[in-house]
Amino acid sequence: MAYVRFSYSLLKRFCTDVFNRFGFSSAEAEIISDVLLTSDLYGIESHGMQRLVRYHKGIEKGMIRVNAKPEMVFETAVSAVIDGHDGMGQLIGYYAMGIAIKKARSGGVGIVTVRESNHYGIAGYYAMMACREGLIGFSTTNSEAIMVPTLGRMAMLGSNPVAFAMPADPFDLLFDASTTVVTRGKLEIYNKCGKPLPEGWALDREGKPCIDAAYVLENIVSRRGGGIMPLGGSSELTGSHKGFGYGMISEIFSSVLSMGTTSNKCLQGTKSGICHGFMAIDPSLFGDPDEIRKHLSSFLEALRDSPKAEGQDRIFTHGEKEALAIEDRMKNGIPISDITMEEIRDVCEYLDMDFRSYFGDYVSLHEGNVFRGNY
Amino acid sequence: MAYVRFSYSLLKRFCTDVFNRFGFSSAEAEIISDVLLTSDLYGIESHGMQRLVRYHKGIEKGMIRVNAKPEMVFETAVSAVIDGHDGMGQLIGYYAMGIAIKKARSGGVGIVTVRESNHYGIAGYYAMMACREGLIGFSTTNSEAIMVPTLGRMAMLGSNPVAFAMPADPFDLLFDASTTVVTRGKLEIYNKCGKPLPEGWALDREGKPCIDAAYVLENIVSRRGGGIMPLGGSSELTGSHKGFGYGMISEIFSSVLSMGTTSNKCLQGTKSGICHGFMAIDPSLFGDPDEIRKHLSSFLEALRDSPKAEGQDRIFTHGEKEALAIEDRMKNGIPISDITMEEIRDVCEYLDMDFRSYFGDYVSLHEGNVFRGNY
Repeated sequence: MAYVRFSYSLLKRFCTDVFNRFGFSSAEAEIISDVLLTSDLYGIESHGMQRLVRYHKGIEKGMIRVNAKPEMVFETAVSAVIDGHDGMGQLIGYYAMGIAIKKARSGGVGIVTVRESNHYGIAGYYAMMACREGLIGFSTTNSEAIMVPTLGRMAMLGSNPVAFAMPADPFDLLFDASTTVVTRGKLEIYNKCGKPLPEGWALDREGKPCIDAAYVLENIVSRRGGGIMPLGGSSELTGSHKGFGYGMISEIFSSVLSMGTTSNKCLQGTKSGICHGFMAIDPSLFGDPDEIRKHLSSFLEALRDSPKAEGQDRIFTHGEKEALAIEDRMKNGIPISDITMEEIRDVCEYLDMDFRSYFGDYVSLHEGNVFRGNY
Repeated sequence: MAYVRFSYSLLKRFCTDVFNRFGFSSAEAEIISDVLLTSDLYGIESHGMQRLVRYHKGIEKGMIRVNAKPEMVFETAVSAVIDGHDGMGQLIGYYAMGIAIKKARSGGVGIVTVRESNHYGIAGYYAMMACREGLIGFSTTNSEAIMVPTLGRMAMLGSNPVAFAMPADPFDLLFDASTTVVTRGKLEIYNKCGKPLPEGWALDREGKPCIDAAYVLENIVSRRGGGIMPLGGSSELTGSHKGFGYGMISEIFSSVLSMGTTSNKCLQGTKSGICHGFMAIDPSLFGDPDEIRKHLSSFLEALRDSPKAEGQDRIFTHGEKEALAIEDRMKNGIPISDITMEEIRDVCEYLDMDFRSYFGDYVSLHEGNVFRGNY
C-alpha cells in the first residue's frame, strides 16, 4: 500500500461535507468527522478515514438511519438507557456520553447504556470527552461477533473494546483496546499484504490456531466458525479466560444493561443492533482532584522512568503514543492509503462531490510524500 | 505434594479459633475465616488455607495490626475513602464493600477506595458480597510489585486482580483474575515441583523471557529486576499493553483514588500499604432487574451451548468452575497439602493450640484420602 499525507484541516472539511451531503446537519457532520479524524490523529488508521466506506455502505443499505434521533427510555439521577433507533453510532455515543458527564457533574457518577445503535468509531473518543472535563471516562461497545470464547470454535462476542481515560500530566491517561488479542482490522491488513498471521491471534473453523488471514476472515463473514482469540490466546495457560472475561464485562455494560442485542446476534439481517456503555466519574468523589491528578501523574512518570528491557529505550504509558501521533499528524499531515483514496473517490461519486476540488490529482501532486509498505 | 481432604466445617472451626487466638473478636474471626475458606471452596488453593502462614507471619511481624479499625476519611452520597490503619485486609475489605453496597441500595451506585490495608484474600469474595444482594459487584486490589510493564524489566505493578460479579441463573457470573498472565502463586507451584515455566509467563532481570521459576522468584523478592508479564505477554503483538492497561485501571481504583501507596512502593519496610477498590451498582438503574438477569442468563447459556473446539466438550462461563468446586468440596472435603499442614502445625504451636484435637494424626487417619501430585 502507498500512503499520501493530507492536512487535518483538509480532511476535516472534506469529511464534514461528506456527512452533510449524506443528510446530517452541520452540527452532526462536525461530530461524526471529529470522531473519525481523532482516530487518525491518534494513529489508529483502522477507525479513521479508512472506515468511511463502512459508514457509506451502512447509510446506503439503510442499516444506519440518517434521521434517527437517540431517545432516553429510562433515567435515574446517576443513570440512563438510550434507544439509538438505528442512528449513526457517533452521534448516539456523543449524546450518551454527554448525559453521563452531566450526571457526573451533578451527582458524581453517570452510567449510560445504549441499545439499537451502530458502530461508533473509537471507544477512546468518548472516554476522552469525560477526561477533557476533568472526569474519569469509561466507554465500551459490543460489535459483530468475532471473539471465540475459551474452548469454543464459534465467534460469540465482539472485539468489545474497553476505553478508560483520566486527567494526568504531561498528557492524559488513555487506555483503549479491544478485549480480543487484535481487532479484525489487523487481520485485514495482513490479508491485504498476503502475510501469514502471527501465532496466537486467530482460530480456524475447528477452533484450532490458524495463521491464514484470508481463510479466517472468510469464515468470520460467513459465520462458519473460527475467529479471533480473546486477549490471552486460546489456552487458559496464557489467560484466555481473562480476555474472555473482559469481553463479558464489555457485553454487560453495553448489551446486557441496555436490554439490547448481544454480539452473537448483532449485524445479522438489516439491523446492526450494536450497543454501547458509558461512565463518567468525578475524581472529587475521593478528595482533592488536583492531588489525585498529581498522584497519578507521578506514578505514570515512575513507570516511564523505570528500567527498560534489554534493547529497549522507552516505556510508553497509555495515552503517550496518541499524544505523539497527534503532534506528528498535525505537523506532517494524516497518512491515507491508496485503497482508502479509492473508497473516497467512490463516496464522492455517490454523493456527486468533486474529488479533485479536495484532493487534486493526489498521486502526482503529492508524489514527494508517497511511501510504500505497512505504515 | 500430598493432599488430605478435610470437611469444610472442621476447617471453619479451626480457622475461626486461630483468628480468635490471634486477638480478633469472634465476629471478626468469622469474617476472616469465611474469606479464606471461600477461596478453598472455589478451588483457588493459593488464596485459602495455604495463605494462613502469610497472615500468621504478618501479624507476628506487626505488619498486620490486629486491633486496628478501618476509618472513613472521606464520604459523599455515592463514594467513600477508607483508611485501613494497617488492619487485617479481609476485615477492611468486608467493611468497605459493606459501605459500597449500602450506598448502591440508596443511591444506585457506591464506589469505595481503601488505603493502608493488607492482603485481603480473593477479590471475588467482595464482588460476590454485592452479587448476593442482587447488585453488580466489582473489587480490585494492588499488591507488592510483580508485573513488569510492557518494554520494561522492573516489576512496577502488582498482580492487581479485578473481580466482577453479577446475578445470573443457574449460577452467578463471577470473573476474578489477576491482570498478570498468572499470579506469583503459580510460579511458586512450578518451583516446588522443579518444573520449567511455560513460555510467556515470566521475565529475567534483563527483561527477557525466562522459564526458570526459582531464578524469577528470587529476583522478585530481592527486587533485582524481572517479574511476571502482563496478561498478553511481553510483546504488543500479543497485547501486552492491554494487560498492562487493566493493571493500571486496578491501580487507579485502589491506590490512586485513595491517595494510597502504589504497587511499586507496597510492602517495603514494615508497612504493607496495600490499597483496594470496591464498587456496587444496582441493576435497577437500567430497568427491571429480573429482565436484565434473564437477559444475561440466556446469553451465558448461549455461550455454553455454542460449538466447542475440536477435542473439547465444554465451554465454561465465568463462575461455573467455582460453582462446581463448591459442590465437590462441600461433599468431599477441601484438599489441604502436606506443606500447608506443616504450616498449620506451626500456627498451632505459636498459638498454643492442640493440633491433634482438630486434625488427629492426619496422615494415618486420612490415609484413604491421600493422593499425590498437583491437585
